[in-house]
Amino acid sequence: MNNAPLRIGMVGLGRLGQRHAENLVRRVAHAEVVAACSPVAEELAWACATLDIRHLYATYAELLACPDLDAVFLVTPTSLHAEQIIQALQAGKHVFCEKPLSLDLADCLRVEQEASKHPELKVMIGFVRRFDTSYRDAYRKIQDGSVGKPYLIRSQTCDKNDPGGFFVRFAATSGGIFLDCSVHDIDLVRWLLGNPEPKRVYASGTNAIHRALEEYQDVDNGLATLEFMDGSIATFMASRTMAHGHETLTEIFGTDGRLTVGANPRSNRVEIADAHGVRNECTADFYERFKDAFLIEAQEFVDAARGVGELSLTLHDATAATRIGLAMTQAMRERRAVDFS
Amino acid sequence: MNNAPLRIGMVGLGRLGQRHAENLVRRVAHAEVVAACSPVAEELAWACATLDIRHLYATYAELLACPDLDAVFLVTPTSLHAEQIIQALQAGKHVFCEKPLSLDLADCLRVEQEASKHPELKVMIGFVRRFDTSYRDAYRKIQDGSVGKPYLIRSQTCDKNDPGGFFVRFAATSGGIFLDCSVHDIDLVRWLLGNPEPKRVYASGTNAIHRALEEYQDVDNGLATLEFMDGSIATFMASRTMAHGHETLTEIFGTDGRLTVGANPRSNRVEIADAHGVRNECTADFYERFKDAFLIEAQEFVDAARGVGELSLTLHDATAATRIGLAMTQAMRERRAVDFS
Amino acid sequence: MNNAPLRIGMVGLGRLGQRHAENLVRRVAHAEVVAACSPVAEELAWACATLDIRHLYATYAELLACPDLDAVFLVTPTSLHAEQIIQALQAGKHVFCEKPLSLDLADCLRVEQEASKHPELKVMIGFVRRFDTSYRDAYRKIQDGSVGKPYLIRSQTCDKNDPGGFFVRFAATSGGIFLDCSVHDIDLVRWLLGNPEPKRVYASGTNAIHRALEEYQDVDNGLATLEFMDGSIATFMASRTMAHGHETLTEIFGTDGRLTVGANPRSNRVEIADAHGVRNECTADFYERFKDAFLIEAQEFVDAARGVGELSLTLHDATAATRIGLAMTQAMRERRAVDFS
Amino acid sequence: MNNAPLRIGMVGLGRLGQRHAENLVRRVAHAEVVAACSPVAEELAWACATLDIRHLYATYAELLACPDLDAVFLVTPTSLHAEQIIQALQAGKHVFCEKPLSLDLADCLRVEQEASKHPELKVMIGFVRRFDTSYRDAYRKIQDGSVGKPYLIRSQTCDKNDPGGFFVRFAATSGGIFLDCSVHDIDLVRWLLGNPEPKRVYASGTNAIHRALEEYQDVDNGLATLEFMDGSIATFMASRTMAHGHETLTEIFGTDGRLTVGANPRSNRVEIADAHGVRNECTADFYERFKDAFLIEAQEFVDAARGVGELSLTLHDATAATRIGLAMTQAMRERRAVDFS
Repeated sequence: MNNAPLRIGMVGLGRLGQRHAENLVRRVAHAEVVAACSPVAEELAWACATLDIRHLYATYAELLACPDLDAVFLVTPTSLHAEQIIQALQAGKHVFCEKPLSLDLADCLRVEQEASKHPELKVMIGFVRRFDTSYRDAYRKIQDGSVGKPYLIRSQTCDKNDPGGFFVRFAATSGGIFLDCSVHDIDLVRWLLGNPEPKRVYASGTNAIHRALEEYQDVDNGLATLEFMDGSIATFMASRTMAHGHETLTEIFGTDGRLTVGANPRSNRVEIADAHGVRNECTADFYERFKDAFLIEAQEFVDAARGVGELSLTLHDATAATRIGLAMTQAMRERRAVDFS
Repeated sequence: MNNAPLRIGMVGLGRLGQRHAENLVRRVAHAEVVAACSPVAEELAWACATLDIRHLYATYAELLACPDLDAVFLVTPTSLHAEQIIQALQAGKHVFCEKPLSLDLADCLRVEQEASKHPELKVMIGFVRRFDTSYRDAYRKIQDGSVGKPYLIRSQTCDKNDPGGFFVRFAATSGGIFLDCSVHDIDLVRWLLGNPEPKRVYASGTNAIHRALEEYQDVDNGLATLEFMDGSIATFMASRTMAHGHETLTEIFGTDGRLTVGANPRSNRVEIADAHGVRNECTADFYERFKDAFLIEAQEFVDAARGVGELSLTLHDATAATRIGLAMTQAMRERRAVDFS
Repeated sequence: MNNAPLRIGMVGLGRLGQRHAENLVRRVAHAEVVAACSPVAEELAWACATLDIRHLYATYAELLACPDLDAVFLVTPTSLHAEQIIQALQAGKHVFCEKPLSLDLADCLRVEQEASKHPELKVMIGFVRRFDTSYRDAYRKIQDGSVGKPYLIRSQTCDKNDPGGFFVRFAATSGGIFLDCSVHDIDLVRWLLGNPEPKRVYASGTNAIHRALEEYQDVDNGLATLEFMDGSIATFMASRTMAHGHETLTEIFGTDGRLTVGANPRSNRVEIADAHGVRNECTADFYERFKDAFLIEAQEFVDAARGVGELSLTLHDATAATRIGLAMTQAMRERRAVDFS
Repeated sequence: MNNAPLRIGMVGLGRLGQRHAENLVRRVAHAEVVAACSPVAEELAWACATLDIRHLYATYAELLACPDLDAVFLVTPTSLHAEQIIQALQAGKHVFCEKPLSLDLADCLRVEQEASKHPELKVMIGFVRRFDTSYRDAYRKIQDGSVGKPYLIRSQTCDKNDPGGFFVRFAATSGGIFLDCSVHDIDLVRWLLGNPEPKRVYASGTNAIHRALEEYQDVDNGLATLEFMDGSIATFMASRTMAHGHETLTEIFGTDGRLTVGANPRSNRVEIADAHGVRNECTADFYERFKDAFLIEAQEFVDAARGVGELSLTLHDATAATRIGLAMTQAMRERRAVDFS
C-alpha cells in the first residue's frame, strides 16, 4: 500500500451506477474516479458535468485500455457480468461487480477460475447487506453466542409496489424473482449460518398484481424453503407488491434467542400520532434502506484493492448464491422439491 | 363473610353508570344489583329492560331506604359525592364512589371523619388505574427494586379531541382540567412513589382548540410540576385535544431504569402496513383503555365489602389527590408556584 | 330460547379443562356447570372444592347419563374426541370440543355425518383464535377491503421452550407439530382467505433442542408452504423453542396493505428501559395470550346452544384443518410436495 | 464562490474536537484542515499523526496569525467562546463554535455586535440537532401543516448515567444542567414553534444519584416549563442518570396530530427476543445519536463560508437560547416562576 488513491473506472451509469459514482467521488476516502463508460451519451454527459470525470468512453474495451486505471466498478446488466469481470482481470484490474455474479452456473465457475489466476487482484460481488451496520451487529451477536446456536432463518426482500411495473420489462433477463431479489437473502443466510451446504429446496409463488410476469414463468411474490446438510433450515419470501415501502427483514432463530433485522422499515426517528393512529413512514426503496451500507461496501473494496484489509466475502459465495437461486427457480417452475446432489 | 352476594344499589345511570351496572350484573362474581336510582326516567327504563333490576327509584333518599341493600355505587356529579357518601354511611351502606371525592377540601375531610365512625363499612373512591394490570405490574416492579429508587414521574392523561366539546359544557362544575383529569395522575404518582408529602406545585396551560374554556379559567391543555418533601418530583400533562385517541401514559424514572406504562395506546395487537406507513389504531377513550380495570376494581370493592380482602386505597388518598389538584389549579390561575404549608 | 342457563358437563379437568371450567362457572353468562367427569380423583376433588360442582363422575358414560345436562365440554385427549362427540350427539347434548377434531380424516367425516343427523344440536371445535379481538379486527378489515385482495398469509405458532420437554412425552399421540400447533394457523388461514381449496403442500423441519422427537418423526421446529387452487399461498412456522415467550403471529398480505396480528407478544402495556435496552416482557404461553378469547368462545357456544346467535365456524372447518395438517406431516416425512387430489 | 476548499483551523482537540476534525478531513466535501491549536501536546501529536494536519500551534493567537486560514472551528470551553469568536471575526475568519454561545448574556450580545460589523463572515453556533434528518423531517411536517398548529412541545435530553460522574467535575463551569443540556431543547423548541417570545419560566430539579452537584446548585435531573407570549407552551426535562442510553426526545403537539422524534433511542435495526423479552439496544451517547447530523452541520458551515447557501440559524438564536437557559436556572435556584420582561 502507498498513499496514492485507487483509480477507478465506472462501467454503467444507470440509476444505481450514478449513486456508486457519486459515493466514490464524494464520500469514499482514497478513491478517485478517473474514467467512466456507458453506451448512453446522456449518462456520460452527466458524469462529466456532475462529477467532473476526465475520461469518458462509449465502450468497455476503450475504458479497459485506459492506462491510469487500477480498478473497475461494474454496474451493468447481469448477462454481461461474467465476461466483463474476466476481461478486467485479464487487463490487470481489481473488480467490483453488482450482484448477482451471473445467472449461469458455468459462467460463475469460469470467473472463479480466472480470478484464481490473479491472486493479486481483488474481486468483490456487491452483496451490500453484509455491510449494513445492523446486519453486522446481528452477525457479531451470533458469533459471540448471544442467541445460542442458530438453526432457522427467515429472510425476505419486499419491494414497494411500482404501479408502472418497471421490473416487468426486465423479467426476460432478470432471472426471475429468486435470482433478482432473494439472492441477497440467500447470501445473508449462508453468511449468518456459517456457509452450510444446501441439501434440498422447495419454492412456489403467485402473481398478486403483475400478471404479465406469468409469460416469463416469474411471479411478483415468491416463497422458498431451503434445507441444509447440517440440519439448519431457511425460509424466504420475495415480493414486488408492498404498499408501505421497501422491507428487507431477516430473522435468525437461535437456541437462546432470536434476532430480527429490519422489522418495521422506519424511514427515520419520527413517529406520527394522528387520525391514522400511531405510525411511522417507511423506507421507499433498497437504496434508502442501504445507503450507508453502499458506502461501507465501497470503502472496503477500495481499501482492500489498496492493500488495506481483506475482502469479507469471496467469489465462491457469489457462485453458491446463484446455485441456490437457480434451484429455487427450478423448484417453483417444476412444482417439486429439488435436491442438491 | 358468607356466601350471600353483595346487594348493590346503583346511583346514577349515565354512560359510565350504565357500564358499571352492566359489569356488576354480568361479570362481577358475588354481586347483585337490586336497586337503581336516577332522576332520568329513560335511564330507569333502561335498567329495567336491559339488566332486569327490580327496585327503581327517582331519588337517592328512596334508594337508601330500600331494606335489601348492602352497598351503593355512586356515579353521580362530583358536587354530590360528599353528601351522598355521608348519607350512605349513616344508613349503614358500603360505598363505591367515582373520582374525584370532592372539589372541596373541607368536604373531603368531612367524609373522612364520617367514615371513621363506621369502621365496618368500606368506602372506595374509583381511582380505576390502580386496578389496571399494567400499572399493577409497574407497581410490583418498583416494589421489588427492578428500577432502583424512583425519583421522578411523568404522567399524562390525554383525551381524544371531541369536536363537539362535550366537556366544555361541564367546565363550570368539573373543577378544571387538573381536578377532572390529572387527579388520576396525581393518585398514581402518590401511589407509585410511596405517598410522599407534597411541597410545591407549579402549573400552566393553554387553549389550543376550545377557547370557550377561558370563561371558566380552564384550559384544554395543562402542564404541572410537583415537588415532594423527600426530593422526588413529578410532571403532569393533561390534554383534551389529541388527534389519535386516548393516551394515558406514566413514566417512572428510577436510579436503575425507567418504566413506561401506556406509550402508544394500541387498541389491540393488529399492525397495519399500508400507504400511511406502519401503524396501529388507538384506544378511543378511557373506557376502552381501562375496561378490564373497571371490572377488577368492582370485584375488589365487592369482595372487600363481603369481608374478603382489604381495599388497596384509602379515603385519605382521595383527599390528598384533591388537595394537590386544587393547588395545581390555583398555581395556574395565579401564575405562580404554590407552596403546601 | 328461554331464560334458563345452559347446563354443562365438563369432561376432562386437566390444566386447560380447569380453566374452561372456571370460566364457565365465574365469567360466562347463562352457563351452569352441573357435572364433571375425570378418571383422576384429585381433579374431581378440585372441581368440588373450588367450583362447587354437584355431580362428579369417574367415567364419561356416567356423565352422559346425567339427566340434567344440556351440553358437554370435551377437554380430553385428541384420540377420544371423535367417539366422545358422537356419543354426546346420540345422547342429545350440544358439544364443545377442544381442537383438533381428530388426527384421522375418516373419524372427522364420521363426526360430520353424525352431526348432520342432529341439526338441532350445536357442535363447536375450539379454534380459539377466531374469537380473539385482534384476529376479529383483522378479519373485519379484510372483509371491508382495507388491504385489498389478500393473496399470501404467513402464520406461526411459536411456544416458549419448555426445558422439561413436556410435549415430548405426548409426541407419540399428538400427531406431530403440524397437527398439534399449526392446525390453529391452518384454520386461521382458511378463515381469513375465505376457505379456498388446498392444492399442494410442502413441509420440512428440524430439531434444534429436543432431539428425542426424532423417534416419533416429529420436530421442534417446522416450516410448511401451502398453495391454494385460487392462486393464494400461505407459509407456516411452528416452534417449541422460543426463548422469549409464546408468539402467535399472522401476517396477511393484501394488494393494498398488510395486516400483522401478534408481532412482539407484549404481556401488557409496560415498557422497561434499563441496562438491557428498551424492552417489554412477553406472554408466557397460549393461555396468557388468548385468555379473553377463551371467554368469548365459551360465550358464543353457550349462546348458540341456548338459541341465541349462530356458531361462526363449522365441523367441516375442523375436518379441513385436519386434512391439511395430515398432508403437511406427510410432506415433511416423505420429503416431497404432496398434492391434494 | 470558487472551487478552492475552505481552509480551516481546529481550535480544541478534546474528544468532540477530534470528531469534528476527523469529519472535516475525511467526510466533508470542500473542506481542508490546515491548522490546529491546543494547549495539550498529545492532542497536537494526534492531529499530526492521524490527520496529517500541517500547522500545529499551542495557542489560539498563533493559529489566528496563520496566513492560509479561512475559518476556525471552536471546540473549546464555553467560557472562552465569546472572546475567541470576537478575535476570529476581527482576524477576518468565518467561525463555527460549539454550543452554548456563552453563559453570559452580555457576552452573547457583544458577539452579535461584533458579527454585525463583518457581514461577509459566517458565524454558526453548533445546535447540531437542527441538522438531524429526523428533526428536519419534523420541521418540514410542521411547516406543511401535517399536524395543524403546534401549541405545545415536550423536549428532553437524557444522558446515560456515567458512574464516574465526569460532568460533576465540570459543574462549576458548565452553567448547570439547563445551560449545558436543555439549551439544545430550548433551541429546538424556538425553531419548531417559529421563534415566539418567551413570557415566563418555572423550573425545578432533584439529585437522584450525583449529590455532589448540590454544591454547585446544580441537579442531575431538571424539569422546566416555558410559556410563550403567543400562548404556546413547552416542557423540558434534562437528566444525567438514564440506565439505558442517551435519549433525546421531542414531542410536538399540534391541533391535528403529534410528532415524536427520538422515542426509544434504537442503536440500529436489530431487535432481540430472548429471556429479557423483546428489546433493542440504545444509543450510548449524543455522538452516536447525532453523528450524521454533525456531518451535515459541518457541510452546511463549509458550504456557506464558501458562498454556497445560507446558514439556517443565526447568532441571535444562540443568544435567545442562553437567555432562556439562564432564566430556567434562576427559576430553579429561587424556587419561583421567572418572568421575561
